[in-house]
Amino acid sequence: MAKLPEKTDFPVSQVRRYLEPGPIVLVSSRWQGAANIMTLGWHTILEFSPSLVGLMISDGNHSHRMIRESRECVINLPTTALTDTVVGIGNTSGRDIDKFAEFDLTAEDADTVDAPLIGECHASFECRLHDDALVETYSFFIFEVVKAHVAASPRHPETLHYTGDGVFMVSGRILSRRSLFRPGML
Amino acid sequence: MAKLPEKTDFPVSQVRRYLEPGPIVLVSSRWQGAANIMTLGWHTILEFSPSLVGLMISDGNHSHRMIRESRECVINLPTTALTDTVVGIGNTSGRDIDKFAEFDLTAEDADTVDAPLIGECHASFECRLHDDALVETYSFFIFEVVKAHVAASPRHPETLHYTGDGVFMVSGRILSRRSLFRPGML
Repeated sequence: MAKLPEKTDFPVSQVRRYLEPGPIVLVSSRWQGAANIMTLGWHTILEFSPSLVGLMISDGNHSHRMIRESRECVINLPTTALTDTVVGIGNTSGRDIDKFAEFDLTAEDADTVDAPLIGECHASFECRLHDDALVETYSFFIFEVVKAHVAASPRHPETLHYTGDGVFMVSGRILSRRSLFRPGML
Repeated sequence: MAKLPEKTDFPVSQVRRYLEPGPIVLVSSRWQGAANIMTLGWHTILEFSPSLVGLMISDGNHSHRMIRESRECVINLPTTALTDTVVGIGNTSGRDIDKFAEFDLTAEDADTVDAPLIGECHASFECRLHDDALVETYSFFIFEVVKAHVAASPRHPETLHYTGDGVFMVSGRILSRRSLFRPGML
């Protein structure tokens, strides 16, 4: 059994560090006693503080109603070690299977929400629904990240970025231009 | 003078191919005779057809009002060849300078909007404001991509993905898992 990455608290105002580059994430939820996971690539940072993120969770997904009713979720960041799991989760439905069991993932208790963390992921962000104004029209949920758990190592995990058509781009080299930024613009 | 990438029409319903991986984009606009450009990393795909994208354009940006009033923009996709330009555009304001002139960029006429395309970019997506419901509260603009121009080569351009703190992740290797997808899930 693989060892789970050890995570520590991370400032919620800085989750852009992990989400702004646009990785595929695994969104976990719990409602009426059942837990579920979906694969999602349609998300954006919206604000530093409060730490707001927007997720388009199509109503074709079993998770849509679970998240809409429970008003919570956890955004988990998988690395390439979980590539086939990410694809498997995206190609199955929580209507038919228990995804934690099916994909041998570890559901860990969150601190502030009932939705479970996925132990195998590099980071997990506990979220509470902040605004549902666009849920009906666009299935667009605005969440506040209320607690963040991040593994210290590796510093730049290999994340998956979906391009459609079954093809992922994997995160590559790191490039600093820090010296060219005005201090207030970092 | 560098040759501009030659672009051809691209299906608007498939712009997720370029935007879903989460690259930094350059958003160009025109209002009251002036053109401007901003660097932006907070965006998400919202729908295939109509082709909807959501952009968080903070009202601290000069572009915010130009785009809000003109109800149009162009989302341009820069590659690593433009890294320092991307940083320079993000660290200056259209209040003070003409960014096309300052950064020696080519403003090309769009087909359906007044906002200019940036000739040096790998792709340009002409957008019309589709829904301003969240502009007041979150500076979140929902645009419809009405026309897409994409360079055929390179097939996988080196895109920039911002992590904050002056540091970019550059797009890396390509990984296909097409054979693992159910047909409807690609």
